[in-house]
Parts: sequence; C-alpha cells; structure tokens
Amino acid sequence: MLESRRRRSNTRSRSGVRGLKARCRFCGREASYHLDHARMSLCSECFIKYYERKVYKTIQKHGMLRKARRVAVAVSGGKDSVALVKVLHELVREKFQEVELVAIHVDLGIPGYSEECRRVVEKVCGDLGLELHVHDLKKAEGYGIPDFMNTPFRRRICGACGTVKRYHTNRMAYQLEADRLATGHNLDDTVEILFELYLKGAVEEIVRMRPVSWSSHPKLVTRIKPLIELTDRENFFYVLAQDLPMLEARCPLVGESRMLRRKKLIEEIEGRIPGFRHTFYKTHLKRFLPRLEKTVEEPRLAECEVCGMPSLGRVCSYCKLTSKLRRAEISRT
Amino acid sequence: MLESRRRRSNTRSRSGVRGLKARCRFCGREASYHLDHARMSLCSECFIKYYERKVYKTIQKHGMLRKARRVAVAVSGGKDSVALVKVLHELVREKFQEVELVAIHVDLGIPGYSEECRRVVEKVCGDLGLELHVHDLKKAEGYGIPDFMNTPFRRRICGACGTVKRYHTNRMAYQLEADRLATGHNLDDTVEILFELYLKGAVEEIVRMRPVSWSSHPKLVTRIKPLIELTDRENFFYVLAQDLPMLEARCPLVGESRMLRRKKLIEEIEGRIPGFRHTFYKTHLKRFLPRLEKTVEEPRLAECEVCGMPSLGRVCSYCKLTSKLRRAEISRT
Repeated sequence: MLESRRRRSNTRSRSGVRGLKARCRFCGREASYHLDHARMSLCSECFIKYYERKVYKTIQKHGMLRKARRVAVAVSGGKDSVALVKVLHELVREKFQEVELVAIHVDLGIPGYSEECRRVVEKVCGDLGLELHVHDLKKAEGYGIPDFMNTPFRRRICGACGTVKRYHTNRMAYQLEADRLATGHNLDDTVEILFELYLKGAVEEIVRMRPVSWSSHPKLVTRIKPLIELTDRENFFYVLAQDLPMLEARCPLVGESRMLRRKKLIEEIEGRIPGFRHTFYKTHLKRFLPRLEKTVEEPRLAECEVCGMPSLGRVCSYCKLTSKLRRAEISRT
Repeated sequence: MLESRRRRSNTRSRSGVRGLKARCRFCGREASYHLDHARMSLCSECFIKYYERKVYKTIQKHGMLRKARRVAVAVSGGKDSVALVKVLHELVREKFQEVELVAIHVDLGIPGYSEECRRVVEKVCGDLGLELHVHDLKKAEGYGIPDFMNTPFRRRICGACGTVKRYHTNRMAYQLEADRLATGHNLDDTVEILFELYLKGAVEEIVRMRPVSWSSHPKLVTRIKPLIELTDRENFFYVLAQDLPMLEARCPLVGESRMLRRKKLIEEIEGRIPGFRHTFYKTHLKRFLPRLEKTVEEPRLAECEVCGMPSLGRVCSYCKLTSKLRRAEISRT
C-alpha cells in the first residue's frame, strides 16, 4: 500500500512545473520542481542537493548540532517529519559523523489514523536503518487523544494534542539520553503562527518560537527546528524527490476552519507581496526577536510535583491536562 | 462650486447603510451611517456625538492637549484635515477653552489641484472663523512640488512632498509660537504604513509613528495626531454629517500603484480578520511600542547649518532636498 503511494511517476503534476520546457537552473536538464519564492526550476537531483544544503546552512547558522552527540528526531509520519528524518540521516552521514540519530514516535491512539502514521514511520525508519522508539499512548498511559473529546478540551483538541506530543517527545528524548530533540516545524507553519502572535502581541510566545530552544533544565532536552526556513512545498518536493512514503490521511479530529483561514490569509498576502513568508520570518529573526528577547524574562523551571518533569508552575501543563481526562472518566462512571 | 459638493442629499448611498430599516443604535431614529468595525448604525446627530467623543478620548488618553495654549492645525483640504479642524474647533469650544486654534496650509503649487485645495481650506476656516496662515511655496520659496519631477525624486515625489510639508508645517507652527501641531493622520494610513514598517523591521521608524511626538528641540513643535484611532470612513462620515466642503480631486502627481496595493492588502486582511486595523494598531501601541522604544535611542537634534531648523545631521533633509532642486535647475539652464 505504501509502495503504491510512491509517486515518481506523477511528480510533474504536483511539482509546479508547467509544460515540459522548464530547465534546471543548475544543470540545464529537464526540471521537475519549481520554487515560486526563489523563481527557480530544478531537476530532481539538483533539488535534493539544494534542499540538503539549505537545511545544512540553517543548522550551522544557529549552531543546532554544535557539540551534539545523540539527536532524537520526532517523526509523526507527515511530509515534514519524513523529510526531516531523511535529510538529517543524509547530513549526519556526510557532515556530522559524530552524531547519532534516534527516531521517536508518539502513537496518539486515533483509530484509523494513528495506525497509518505508525506504518509510515516504521517503513521510513526501517529503510534508513534507524533505531525507532514508539510511545503508545493507549498502551503506556491508558488513553488516546480522542478521549479528550469528553473533556473541556474538545474544542481545543489540537492544543491538547500539542501539549501531549511536546511532553512525550521531550520525555522520550530525555530517557534516551539525547542532547537534542529535532522537530519538523516548517516556514509556513511558523509564519502562520507568528502572524497571529504578532497580531495578539503575545511577546512571550513570540520569543519562544526560536529555531533553537536551548535547554534550561536538566530534564528539558534542547529543541531544534532544522526545517524552519524550508517551505511546505520544499519539504513535500523533497519527499517526492527522495521517493519516500508519507502520510496521506488527515487527522480526523482536526477542526480545520481556523487553521485553514490562517493558511489562506498568509497565501493571499504572499500573492500580493511575493516572498512575504521569507521576508516576515527574516525580519522577525533579525530585527524583532533580539529586541523582544531582552524584554522577556526567561521563565525559571521547577519540577512538576506530579511527574517530576520540568514545569513552570507546581504542576506541569501535561499533568493538568491528563488530570482533566481522569476527572472526566470518573464523572462518566 | 463648493456648495454643489455639499451632499446631505446623497448621504445614504455613501454611508454604508443599506435599505431604510437600519436604526440608530443610540436614539432609534433612522440611521444614516454604518460602522462595520463597530457593527453599529447611527443617525447623523448621534454619529457626530460618537465621533467627537472618540477624538476627545484619544486626546485625553495621550495627553495631547495637556498644558497646550496654541494649536496649529495643518489643513490640506482633504477629508481628514477638514474633519480634524472642525472637530478640534468643536472640542476647543466645549472642553478646552484655554486653547487657541490657528489653521495652517501649505500651498504646494500643483496646477489645477493646489488652487482647489486652497479654496476648500479657505472656505472651511472662513466658516469656522479661524485664523488661517498659508505658506505659498511658489511665491515664498520659488518652487512648487511639480519641480521635483526634474530631479532624482521624480519616482519618490510623495516622499519629497512629505518632507516639504513636514518642514513647513513645523516652521509655520514654530513661527506662530504654537506649542502643538495637529495633523489629520488616520487609522487606515497609520496601519498601512506600520504594516510595511513591521515587515521591513524598521524599528526606528516604527517608534516614530507615535500618536504624540513630543518636542525634543526648541524649534521642533510637538506633533499630535488626534484622528489616529478614527478610520478613513469615520472621517468621511463626519465631513458628510457636518455638511463640510472637502476636496474631491486627487493629486495628479501621485503614482498610485504602491499606495493602492498597500490599501487593498489591508482591506483584504480586514475582510478575513474583522477589526484587523483596530487590533493591529492597539497591539502595536500597547504591546510592541513600549518594548521597542526602550531599544531605540532618541536621536539628538542639532540645528541645520543651512536653515537653522532642527536636523539630525549637519544639513536637514529639507535643505538637502531643495539643494537637489537648485542643482537640477542649474543643469537645465
């Protein structure tokens, strides 16, 4: 089934290259991919080189792998995380031989969806020969994300899921003694969220959207976002060009309206201001972040009284969240 | 001719009130104006009260007229400045009796346009019984704005005109011994410019977009923007509701493409995020401005070696600008 999703055959129609005359900017052969923001067409081989160089530059610019020994890569099965694990695997082989990669995956327990995520992740990691650690929420914790539908988090299910994933990926990385946790956040997501945060003036949250969040607690693993300067499309093209499997299904719990509205707005602005996402992100990074950082105090982390993991308050947000889950269960029985 | 432009008769079609059933939110009579952002319809009388109260609140919030004695109002003849001079006249009569108003106008020497501007300004100020001072560029300085078309400023003519107007309104206000200079900048303009400045990360310029720029030099008059929280539409409605004359012609020199693109973009965003302009401005004012201000050093002003007015460098930007004008003339003769 995964094999059938490999799609070198229909690359062209999804690649943005119209007609057959576009030539690769680098080698002059027939192009397979077109990058609007860079006004550039590339063949499959040159695109892979371009992409991997770009990720390498992002990593170097922010010192993401400086003195790193063991990097846990969070792989959900979506295009971004599949691209991430592949590109890191390539870069480690070529440029960071001292680094060891471990893949981690949180099985969210969403029927008909999580099984497919897991199959993709297992296939990708298997093909790359990567050690894979899966945390199965249902088995290990006794709940799955759909159980939040019976709590006040029903309408903020993506937020709750985010808290769960952040908590468990960090805990897994910590338990695996990793000194980095890499996630697949891309430019599009980042700009969509940043735009909203700037509009709200949520300065504390803006500051937290850094490409690297250095550890500020022994149990908090440094988080890195090597794809933060790569677009949705670039990650998608990389998965196509590398002929990797990737999740096609969408999460059945996602209330898409708000996310979609946000996405469409940014697309519209990009239509009027070509390169908007890149400009916005670059300005944020160079002009605002350094100034805003100075005005925000780094929060001091303690250990959660319930689970012992890092926490801002006495009880961490994950334990607060899951306590509501338990309360909902009690009231139902 | 101006009389013919008075348009109580066709208020409805321009007022955003569709059909005849909309009722005034305050008094229940038939509404004449609809304010999208506030989801509110108002009759003419209540709109005037609402508008004047809102300007009063802006003035009070920022202490714009605290200890003011003599306020120079820059009147170009456009809807914003006509609304400004009228509302200030009303507020001075009711709330700030200790304040004296003087109107100032810079005649830009643009054939077929500046004459009409001047007629509107003279009519408005005449009707209000206001002292009006006109600085006629052609007569007093020997040039008009169109002369910049023969200089490198051709493509930035609006920028050059802005420098000229800023310089002469300040000099006039200073010579008239005014302690405030009021201008008609509205919310729409402000948000359009701020959006661009945020995207560029032009922090120094963002900080300069304050509602009040307190004087930092004896020859620099404190500038206030009493309409900064009022929209384009609100100012337009106020002019209609008060039955004032207003300039209809557009400046023939304005290359409209960029300004229009900017305007359309903000309108589109407002379509997707209702209240965008108000939210954006409020967030800027409350969340970013106070933080950004701290990171920017207030520039020290000296006196221009040529004209003696306040300047950042040895020669002020106005004198630099007009020297280019002279150079262009010399090379043409």
